[in-house]
Amino acid sequence: HGATGRGNDQMRFERYTNVLAPEMKVYAPWRDPVLLREFPGRRQMAEFLSRRGIEAFAGGRKRYSTDANLAGISYEAMDLESLETPCTIVKPQMGVWPQQAPNRPEKFSVRFHEGRAVEINGRRMNPLQIMREANRIGGRNGVGIKNALENRIIGTKSRGVYEAPGMELLGSCLRIVYQATMDRSCADLFAQLSSLVARQIYGGRYYDPATTAALAAIHQMARFASGLVTVALYKGNIHFVSLTECRASLYNEADSSMEASAGLNPASSQGYAEIQSVEARTLARAGQIRR
Amino acid sequence: HGATGRGNDQMRFERYTNVLAPEMKVYAPWRDPVLLREFPGRRQMAEFLSRRGIEAFAGGRKRYSTDANLAGISYEAMDLESLETPCTIVKPQMGVWPQQAPNRPEKFSVRFHEGRAVEINGRRMNPLQIMREANRIGGRNGVGIKNALENRIIGTKSRGVYEAPGMELLGSCLRIVYQATMDRSCADLFAQLSSLVARQIYGGRYYDPATTAALAAIHQMARFASGLVTVALYKGNIHFVSLTECRASLYNEADSSMEASAGLNPASSQGYAEIQSVEARTLARAGQIRR
Amino acid sequence: HGATGRGNDQMRFERYTNVLAPEMKVYAPWRDPVLLREFPGRRQMAEFLSRRGIEAFAGGRKRYSTDANLAGISYEAMDLESLETPCTIVKPQMGVWPQQAPNRPEKFSVRFHEGRAVEINGRRMNPLQIMREANRIGGRNGVGIKNALENRIIGTKSRGVYEAPGMELLGSCLRIVYQATMDRSCADLFAQLSSLVARQIYGGRYYDPATTAALAAIHQMARFASGLVTVALYKGNIHFVSLTECRASLYNEADSSMEASAGLNPASSQGYAEIQSVEARTLARAGQIRR
Amino acid sequence: HGATGRGNDQMRFERYTNVLAPEMKVYAPWRDPVLLREFPGRRQMAEFLSRRGIEAFAGGRKRYSTDANLAGISYEAMDLESLETPCTIVKPQMGVWPQQAPNRPEKFSVRFHEGRAVEINGRRMNPLQIMREANRIGGRNGVGIKNALENRIIGTKSRGVYEAPGMELLGSCLRIVYQATMDRSCADLFAQLSSLVARQIYGGRYYDPATTAALAAIHQMARFASGLVTVALYKGNIHFVSLTECRASLYNEADSSMEASAGLNPASSQGYAEIQSVEARTLARAGQIRR
Repeated sequence: HGATGRGNDQMRFERYTNVLAPEMKVYAPWRDPVLLREFPGRRQMAEFLSRRGIEAFAGGRKRYSTDANLAGISYEAMDLESLETPCTIVKPQMGVWPQQAPNRPEKFSVRFHEGRAVEINGRRMNPLQIMREANRIGGRNGVGIKNALENRIIGTKSRGVYEAPGMELLGSCLRIVYQATMDRSCADLFAQLSSLVARQIYGGRYYDPATTAALAAIHQMARFASGLVTVALYKGNIHFVSLTECRASLYNEADSSMEASAGLNPASSQGYAEIQSVEARTLARAGQIRR
Repeated sequence: HGATGRGNDQMRFERYTNVLAPEMKVYAPWRDPVLLREFPGRRQMAEFLSRRGIEAFAGGRKRYSTDANLAGISYEAMDLESLETPCTIVKPQMGVWPQQAPNRPEKFSVRFHEGRAVEINGRRMNPLQIMREANRIGGRNGVGIKNALENRIIGTKSRGVYEAPGMELLGSCLRIVYQATMDRSCADLFAQLSSLVARQIYGGRYYDPATTAALAAIHQMARFASGLVTVALYKGNIHFVSLTECRASLYNEADSSMEASAGLNPASSQGYAEIQSVEARTLARAGQIRR
Repeated sequence: HGATGRGNDQMRFERYTNVLAPEMKVYAPWRDPVLLREFPGRRQMAEFLSRRGIEAFAGGRKRYSTDANLAGISYEAMDLESLETPCTIVKPQMGVWPQQAPNRPEKFSVRFHEGRAVEINGRRMNPLQIMREANRIGGRNGVGIKNALENRIIGTKSRGVYEAPGMELLGSCLRIVYQATMDRSCADLFAQLSSLVARQIYGGRYYDPATTAALAAIHQMARFASGLVTVALYKGNIHFVSLTECRASLYNEADSSMEASAGLNPASSQGYAEIQSVEARTLARAGQIRR
Repeated sequence: HGATGRGNDQMRFERYTNVLAPEMKVYAPWRDPVLLREFPGRRQMAEFLSRRGIEAFAGGRKRYSTDANLAGISYEAMDLESLETPCTIVKPQMGVWPQQAPNRPEKFSVRFHEGRAVEINGRRMNPLQIMREANRIGGRNGVGIKNALENRIIGTKSRGVYEAPGMELLGSCLRIVYQATMDRSCADLFAQLSSLVARQIYGGRYYDPATTAALAAIHQMARFASGLVTVALYKGNIHFVSLTECRASLYNEADSSMEASAGLNPASSQGYAEIQSVEARTLARAGQIRR
């Protein structure tokens, strides 16, 4: 493969080859000392090609390099390597910066069925259509452009700008359903597993057994994440409008109300507080409270 | 204390009294069955007072209740109890919604010394001044208004809208310094401890021994968080402009560059990849890779 | 139910009733102020019964109370409440203390199929037979008696002695298979989820959604845990003898050997070390190394 | 350094040199392709030396290699590489196997002051004396010999037998004090941080910032770990005898007692249970309970 010897992609190509076709060898010229002597970097290779009449990296000097797929675009390298370069030098390709977004809010609704988006603005769609529509609507409202200083697989820091309007938009809406349907233990477990899966995918470990296991747990929790979410998009912001048709919601107005209601009996809280006070007073008497 | 019997505050008042003055008893009328018989909710108490010529909750019906301090304001109850009420019914008191914010970006710079903000836009300030200035500047740019469905201490769900422009602004800027100075292990540990401290404070456990211990670790990591951050604020968005004077930064352009540089030797990555491939191929041969 | 108002069982009975039959009410006399006035403790109730000619808690004063099932026995209360009482006052009922165990090692082998014990000492058995046999063999060798100071559900500390010879024995053997088949990420994830499930079961939350999710992940990882484990039991000790027929084992003698072998190429480690050194030297130069 | 190219030590020597003296280069002959061509393993080097009249690895063929320090001894390689070799082929050097230990229990008491052992069997000692005495007493009673299949730094599995009688003995006793003094949050945090520090030390990262931070938190929690622990040692077993003089203990007989006492009011548990039941019933009604 042609990935460089300092980045993440080399390690991902390597790992996926290793696990999916362990009998294959991986050759990465940008890590080969012989090639590196002749071509220490991309500039030298472009010059070499140019001397032979081939124009690589054509179209004039760019200020950063770009990698794109359905889920998002990453911008990094060159001018972006300096931490004195604002992220706003990037020209978004899936949408616009908030400043260029329309000056009035746009409503967006999405229906989730067991953790998956299945309908946008009242229209059923397949997953590919969902991603494209979310990218289009999120993108035009300036949603989902972020700057990051991240830890590469091999331990060095890297600076990048990411554009992922659809993922950001769908993720924000799904979070609303999760907030309504997950109890405290599920919310903690999900946060932990979600980080783990993200880290594993970042490291080229999507097929690894720990990823498979974590996803099995996540799928269990996602079964309850059905509901209709409406938000308002405005220049990069996503504001909650409503959550309805959420069968497994744990939210109950009567239990949380500050007024008289048929919900939780406030007198019960007295006993709850008394039980908690036993441990609290014990900590105090044991001298464990910081003053 | 006068906190209701369904919320969080009752438990916080209780716990702080228990740990700081374990010899004291706490009386909470809104959990007292005798009082609850006469006054099931705030409405009945207002009526009682009204019959005696005292106007409580004066000034007409509000759509939600408000709790404010230097760090932020929470809006909840009444109309906000319905998940069909948009968060935008709230009238911000520390700033404005993004729609009312100015139509041009405002630069904001903050200097951190060992994890603490000490200077805004070139002016040294004490912590109180810092909070006020960050609130003012963040607030006028529509920063830091959020909707949440949260898990109360006693386990029920509650819906609220939070306004905390200064905390959001300073937090986002500090995160940039942390991204530059924390290695992967520190970043993981910090994320974990930061959640723990947040959960403990939410639960009225700021003086508890686990909080004290977690803060001791956080303070160690914060020692390296010095640097000058500049961002651009625009209608609720915070965009990275620069990070400078960050002595303990682990970011090194030469190591991450895709071009020839004096940094990390790409040929070394070959050995790194070979070592990783041993485990990867073993997983494959052991039949542990999902297909 | 008849559980006391200070222990764990009351909360477990309560929770299982609540989640499995939410329409039912739970009445717990030992938490009822009216009953508690008449019978502050078990002693008073025994006296009351005695005056009516009924002998409760017959058979003379015991030094502790006992709760038993197939998996184990707990001993607590009375004399065991004092932390100056040695755990050895307990008379084991499923086996013996190490001192009473035979003076020669006994070999024990168990075959696991996808995480479940299916064969002991060469004989196929169903789960109930497995538990009984493991209890019998572990018990007679003094395995699995432990003292604990634990945190009850309601936050107080409790002291108990636990006897669980079969669980301890099977658990130790299963751990050997897990050590061979789990990579680092799986081992970390399993440790975490295993703690979570233990905590949930302790709290009466076996049917809760977080437990269901965690078990789904564990079942994925357990699929690889097949193999034949032999250990030697001797007066409470469990010593590793062999692990064989473990198809998904990640252990590879050639890769770990210190001698010349067809395994991992030691020259690759040079590149691995060089990559790691980039981050290490950066930490040093950034002043982040404690001296 | 002379560490091999497949083990952990090479990575530890490397990392400590990198962080403590980043200007130094590390040369590891066993990773040098030129040397490896001539000496693929230790056998070939011994033969080479032998031909020149130098006897390396003298004293006849051993069945495993040994690494020792004050804290413990590791046995690995050669015969131990096979998972069909029992751990009992190892001849302990700091103590004996349980079978060779005396046939009667020996009492052992240790006083901890803020997490550090300061006195054994009534005699004040400095840390070195403590370790030696604990090694001697634990060792002669067969304590602390363990078999492990572990994940090396570079990702391969390794099999070893560890002997660490003093660490095991002091660790078991300290755990008793921790169980008495740590509340649930501290116990969780400590378990997590303790794993982190172990992993960091294993990886040669004792001076890393995450280790420093974790230790700062641990030291806070250890401040409360003072007390006098007595245990009985018997052929590898450690049995609880007593815990006294533990000022910060959270254990309170009256609160945990099943009899009438001045402790926790059982009637309070009714309110506690009612509060918990709100969440439990909500989960059931939301269809989230597995049946």
